[in-house]
Amino acid sequence: MSAPVSVKDYENSAREKLPKSVWDYYSSGANNEQTLSDNCNAFSRYRLRPHVLNDVSKVNLGSSVLGTPIDFPVCIASTAMNKMAHPTGEIAVVKAAESMKIGYMQSTWATTSVEDITAAAPGAIRWLQLYIYKNREVTKQLVQRAERLGYQGIFLTVDTPILGKRYKDVKNNFSLPSHLSLENFKALDLKELHTVDGENGSGLAQMVAALIDPSLQWSDIAWLKTITSMPIVLKGIITGEMAKRAVKENVAGILVSNHGARQLDGVPATIDALREIVQAVDGKCEVYLDGGVRNGTDVIKAIAFGAKAVFIGRPVLWGLAHNGQEGVRHVLKMLREEFKTALQLMGCTSIEELQSGVNMVVPQSYFNSSL
Amino acid sequence: MSAPVSVKDYENSAREKLPKSVWDYYSSGANNEQTLSDNCNAFSRYRLRPHVLNDVSKVNLGSSVLGTPIDFPVCIASTAMNKMAHPTGEIAVVKAAESMKIGYMQSTWATTSVEDITAAAPGAIRWLQLYIYKNREVTKQLVQRAERLGYQGIFLTVDTPILGKRYKDVKNNFSLPSHLSLENFKALDLKELHTVDGENGSGLAQMVAALIDPSLQWSDIAWLKTITSMPIVLKGIITGEMAKRAVKENVAGILVSNHGARQLDGVPATIDALREIVQAVDGKCEVYLDGGVRNGTDVIKAIAFGAKAVFIGRPVLWGLAHNGQEGVRHVLKMLREEFKTALQLMGCTSIEELQSGVNMVVPQSYFNSSL
Amino acid sequence: MSAPVSVKDYENSAREKLPKSVWDYYSSGANNEQTLSDNCNAFSRYRLRPHVLNDVSKVNLGSSVLGTPIDFPVCIASTAMNKMAHPTGEIAVVKAAESMKIGYMQSTWATTSVEDITAAAPGAIRWLQLYIYKNREVTKQLVQRAERLGYQGIFLTVDTPILGKRYKDVKNNFSLPSHLSLENFKALDLKELHTVDGENGSGLAQMVAALIDPSLQWSDIAWLKTITSMPIVLKGIITGEMAKRAVKENVAGILVSNHGARQLDGVPATIDALREIVQAVDGKCEVYLDGGVRNGTDVIKAIAFGAKAVFIGRPVLWGLAHNGQEGVRHVLKMLREEFKTALQLMGCTSIEELQSGVNMVVPQSYFNSSL
Amino acid sequence: MSAPVSVKDYENSAREKLPKSVWDYYSSGANNEQTLSDNCNAFSRYRLRPHVLNDVSKVNLGSSVLGTPIDFPVCIASTAMNKMAHPTGEIAVVKAAESMKIGYMQSTWATTSVEDITAAAPGAIRWLQLYIYKNREVTKQLVQRAERLGYQGIFLTVDTPILGKRYKDVKNNFSLPSHLSLENFKALDLKELHTVDGENGSGLAQMVAALIDPSLQWSDIAWLKTITSMPIVLKGIITGEMAKRAVKENVAGILVSNHGARQLDGVPATIDALREIVQAVDGKCEVYLDGGVRNGTDVIKAIAFGAKAVFIGRPVLWGLAHNGQEGVRHVLKMLREEFKTALQLMGCTSIEELQSGVNMVVPQSYFNSSL
Ligand SMILES: Cc1cc2nc3c(=O)[nH]c(=O)nc-3n(C[C@H](O)[C@H](O)[C@H](O)COP(=O)(O)O)c2cc1C
Ligand SMILES: Cc1cc2nc3c(=O)[nH]c(=O)nc-3n(C[C@H](O)[C@H](O)[C@H](O)COP(=O)(O)O)c2cc1C
Ligand SMILES: Cc1cc2nc3c(=O)[nH]c(=O)nc-3n(C[C@H](O)[C@H](O)[C@H](O)COP(=O)(O)O)c2cc1C
Ligand SMILES: Cc1cc2nc3c(=O)[nH]c(=O)nc-3n(C[C@H](O)[C@H](O)[C@H](O)COP(=O)(O)O)c2cc1C
Repeated sequence: MSAPVSVKDYENSAREKLPKSVWDYYSSGANNEQTLSDNCNAFSRYRLRPHVLNDVSKVNLGSSVLGTPIDFPVCIASTAMNKMAHPTGEIAVVKAAESMKIGYMQSTWATTSVEDITAAAPGAIRWLQLYIYKNREVTKQLVQRAERLGYQGIFLTVDTPILGKRYKDVKNNFSLPSHLSLENFKALDLKELHTVDGENGSGLAQMVAALIDPSLQWSDIAWLKTITSMPIVLKGIITGEMAKRAVKENVAGILVSNHGARQLDGVPATIDALREIVQAVDGKCEVYLDGGVRNGTDVIKAIAFGAKAVFIGRPVLWGLAHNGQEGVRHVLKMLREEFKTALQLMGCTSIEELQSGVNMVVPQSYFNSSL
Repeated sequence: MSAPVSVKDYENSAREKLPKSVWDYYSSGANNEQTLSDNCNAFSRYRLRPHVLNDVSKVNLGSSVLGTPIDFPVCIASTAMNKMAHPTGEIAVVKAAESMKIGYMQSTWATTSVEDITAAAPGAIRWLQLYIYKNREVTKQLVQRAERLGYQGIFLTVDTPILGKRYKDVKNNFSLPSHLSLENFKALDLKELHTVDGENGSGLAQMVAALIDPSLQWSDIAWLKTITSMPIVLKGIITGEMAKRAVKENVAGILVSNHGARQLDGVPATIDALREIVQAVDGKCEVYLDGGVRNGTDVIKAIAFGAKAVFIGRPVLWGLAHNGQEGVRHVLKMLREEFKTALQLMGCTSIEELQSGVNMVVPQSYFNSSL
Repeated sequence: MSAPVSVKDYENSAREKLPKSVWDYYSSGANNEQTLSDNCNAFSRYRLRPHVLNDVSKVNLGSSVLGTPIDFPVCIASTAMNKMAHPTGEIAVVKAAESMKIGYMQSTWATTSVEDITAAAPGAIRWLQLYIYKNREVTKQLVQRAERLGYQGIFLTVDTPILGKRYKDVKNNFSLPSHLSLENFKALDLKELHTVDGENGSGLAQMVAALIDPSLQWSDIAWLKTITSMPIVLKGIITGEMAKRAVKENVAGILVSNHGARQLDGVPATIDALREIVQAVDGKCEVYLDGGVRNGTDVIKAIAFGAKAVFIGRPVLWGLAHNGQEGVRHVLKMLREEFKTALQLMGCTSIEELQSGVNMVVPQSYFNSSL
Repeated sequence: MSAPVSVKDYENSAREKLPKSVWDYYSSGANNEQTLSDNCNAFSRYRLRPHVLNDVSKVNLGSSVLGTPIDFPVCIASTAMNKMAHPTGEIAVVKAAESMKIGYMQSTWATTSVEDITAAAPGAIRWLQLYIYKNREVTKQLVQRAERLGYQGIFLTVDTPILGKRYKDVKNNFSLPSHLSLENFKALDLKELHTVDGENGSGLAQMVAALIDPSLQWSDIAWLKTITSMPIVLKGIITGEMAKRAVKENVAGILVSNHGARQLDGVPATIDALREIVQAVDGKCEVYLDGGVRNGTDVIKAIAFGAKAVFIGRPVLWGLAHNGQEGVRHVLKMLREEFKTALQLMGCTSIEELQSGVNMVVPQSYFNSSL
């Protein structure tokens, strides 16, 4: 294989390099994987309507998340258990993020602890993705460790009261390899993750059922605020109604996400859902998107619809699997470069200019209705 | 082949295990099989819009059909001649239904009699699917035998005055293997089913033409009521107009069905037709759906649109072909599990909650129109 | 290959039996063949909404064309040079039509003369498809020969002032085999048809350019009426505007046709265009359809939209290539049978009942708009 | 391979004949090549609604561009570096254009100088496609050389402040073969084009970044007018808003183009965008289209929507690669022939007649809305 020049190339490389059960775990989605392909395909249902003859010799790619500036509007979404992709795991990822000056969202289920991550990349913008455990004390301790280490926000995952049905994981009896562990919870007894009973098949699903709180509800946000002063972003909102409800709870942000199509198959593609959420929120909190972002024009579309930043999950894993930190860094550099190119070709010199344009991104149906 | 983890896996197994002519008979649809694929594909044209942060630690999956509670809203649709799939035939199926506490609809053309089925699974919820014979005395006797045996309802098939054109059956000169018989009619001379004349090709089509009454009409429902006090459901309604007409006859329910796409190719997918029927019926009788249901999110969609339950035909045959009662049971268990998972991920604790939500299931076009 | 049970089977058989250049000539369409596939695919964009519980024990399949009763509403469209498909050529076709009591439209470019056809099947309903020659005397003689022989109508082809671009014929340097001739014009010097110059490639295209009148215009219909008293049908109308114009000329009928997608690639599928034409004509003349009709439900759709009959082109050639008259007859019998089955399953006992129903055939979009 | 009879055939021939990196450079588009396929596919979303029975024995195919008559409305779009396709390069192309009496737009980056082109085909209609260099003196000299040589217009490319991302060129480290040079700029140091640094990959992208002015803006049109009196056409407008803005600058024409989908992936297909631009311009300047034109009906569609002419890029390269001038000429002849055929089959004798018709070209959705 020649050197990768696109996210797609990294994906192909990862497919070759990873053991099948790891590839399956990383790449697959829930049930029929309809939303999985829709997340990507939906981007191609929108059209760019560029300005021309605008001076684009100087462009500013910067944005910010929760008040912290980022160099360009692509951050890293939380993905569990990165050491399965490469021995350097989360450390490689956070260092790549640090070097590119964008944000890193760490998974609750990282194979590296919040302490080790902070030590490796103290200058990185770090956020903690949070699953709330039935055992609230465990939850509290994790949140407060992160806060003390300088994490700057909580991304509370709201789409996972239980784990989605992923046929391939069930088939593979997927479980975390025994030499790895969820480092944030060394104290907890996690044998569930390494053993699989015959009935259910997926070790991860069993762990979630055993440990994660399926009774999580809106009132728990208030509780979360009592244990931390970090800003709270809800990760996994996919409808305008829920966004409105979130605004009532005074959250700092909403990450429009369907968990990379791994939870409930059949939900809308995130780029399809984004607009109604931006409209519902009406500027009262920040909005981001993840799901299916694979090149610079995908970023343009989400930003044009009102997102402050997008997050990428799998592309980071593909880069990591290819060659560790360098791969992740190159994935980010390519996306930066492609976003810059696309922004210039849209005739815009900044995110603000893109967002203030009228009808710069439209659905394909725009062209029939204009008859 | 590894152990099946989805209905699709069972289908693949059945394709391998069954003789070609049986597989063809079970799997095929009328003419070009356009509606056959549409029945499944149509589900993927709808999108789920879940609630989040609702306490889903306890969920109630129960529903009811004709007043009888069922453990979860998936019942078994009538399919003819189950002993071709597995020697245990209908007995295996009804026992699986009994053990899962959902309803079993027996085909008029079962290879097991109503008496034997009742003896094997006396605790099962049993309904009789009815074809009305030209010989009304034959019809009357069957209905009354079923009623005496504790059957709780009649599903009168209204989409089969004659049999649909199924090219594969014609090609295969399909007929019931000579060692099997339609056990409900031992008295009748059914040589038609075992012999095929060169012209027409399908033995089943010839039997229908010989025995079934193509003059069946609305007024016959009144006649049916004179011979039984069981509630009557019309199976095979696919338009709002016909649903309105059915309500006038005071039927107890409507099963929105296109006979698994085996009768008239080109009719709408059942999930596409469901909404207009629910609207037309306006609560005046129960509404169910069958056709193309293959996983838990399909069930969610039908229930959200107002069905009290869905029925499955082919998935049962695939389970039966794989390994008899155990296969059928596992198919049902998977659907129960998937429905439960999907309900929780929709943020609902019961069917009532799902049905009272607004816009929780929408067509994909919803997202373009929201521009 | 097993015995054919569908038009598709006959098509597959013909593909195997015919020399490549003949298969290409018969099967191909203009340019990219977009309309060719659309003609068939468009049928599958419509949905049938059947009535149920109507007594369909007795059905009347009959219709009429230009006042002449036909046994069922499928007639034979003119296709040139049938002896390339089978030595019995047009004779086999007209005899099959005669035996099935439906109408036969003979091509101007038949490889059998009007006289021989009439002698072979004096009881057949015969119409003459007409190309108007630059030499009007030639035209006049042909029309008057046909009229004297008892032909009952003229189908004037209006979509062929010049021949469409068919890449395969150009590639094959297609021309009529030298042992065959266009029997209606023995007197004419037709060396053009047998020889091909290097530039243009298609012998047929050159013949059309040499002989057929590209200046044909609306006023010529009046001229045609001066030379014959047979009713005139315009073959090749595909828009409502042209249909309205045709009505002004007092034509007896309109055949909605795009010449089997062989003339102008990119025109609408005929079933898509039919409705606007029926609306435009508003009962002032008869309307028929040809193009892409391949099974009984296609016939249902065209009839439900207001056609009095449909015509088939290629299916006849496939039957002819398979085994002469018997093949054509079987194709017709299958379509009769399939149309009957579909009519009964629509809950209708006649064409009138089908046409007086409301929304019995609708586009797929009907189901989304009903939300 | 048999002799080519369509543009598609020439494309297949070129794919075989050209070195991979040249084929990739010529054929590829930006990023995912979504717009690349859309440019062609979009044409097939429109339907032709022909007139019939109009005398089409005499047709006038002529149009004009910037006041200069052309024999038929297909001209040659600028494509860089034609000598890679065939040693005769741009000379072969301009001679073919001259012989067919249509216009030739020369690329700034031709491998033949404006002087040599003029010498080879003094009778050809020549326009200069212009990239504006950071070094305005270079730009000025080129423009004025062209004007002195009798060039009749400037096509100022406005969609290329920087080069689009083309994965294949990056992968191939694409650069101009060392024996060729951009002949219009012999004076300039163009080592950039022949060497590629490891980071970026595409030599062309590096040259553009080094030499072309990304600060180009609306006010530069006024500057351009100070150095030439040739009419100015903006090449690369794809929205109505930009077209309106262009009209304000009193440009002579707009070429609706997305640079053959090589700049910003995700922009609309040109035929989709054309209508809104024609509407916006409202007759105040000429409008042309390029992108995806591959046969005569594509031309019909663009002309019917208001274009005065279409331009072709890749088809010329395919013809050139096949056999030099003869290939280009044959491509043009085929398109002329196909356009003529299509015009006649539309029932029109001239472009004016086509453009004055109502609804002669419509989107496919037209047929559903007419229900
Ligand atoms: C392998 C994998 C593991 C993931 N683990 C988590 C997780 O632990 N917590 C979480 O909130 N989201 C998790 N996600 C979801 C991601 O945060 C993100 O929403 C998604 O990957 C974005 O879609 P993309 O992969 O198409 O970019 C995971 C996704 C993947 C692919
Ligand atoms: C092999 C087979 C046999 C069937 N036999 C009958 C029958 O005897 N009576 C009847 O009313 N429906 C019959 N049906 C239709 C089913 O009751 C049901 O409507 C259909 O199978 C549901 O679609 P599904 O198979 O996609 O789940 C049959 C279906 C199949 C596949
Ligand atoms: C091989 C072939 C030859 C044809 N020859 C003629 C012809 O001579 N005159 C004519 O009006 N139409 C001719 N047609 C068009 C047919 O009359 C008819 O419109 C068309 O075949 C209907 O479409 P179908 O083939 O999809 O059924 C021809 C069609 C085919 C396929
Ligand atoms: C290989 C190639 C090179 C091109 N070079 C130029 C160029 O130098 N300047 C320019 O304005 N457009 C250039 N174009 C764009 C063409 O002028 C034109 O817009 C496009 O090719 C039309 O699309 P088509 O190739 O589908 O016909 C190039 C296109 C191709 C395919």
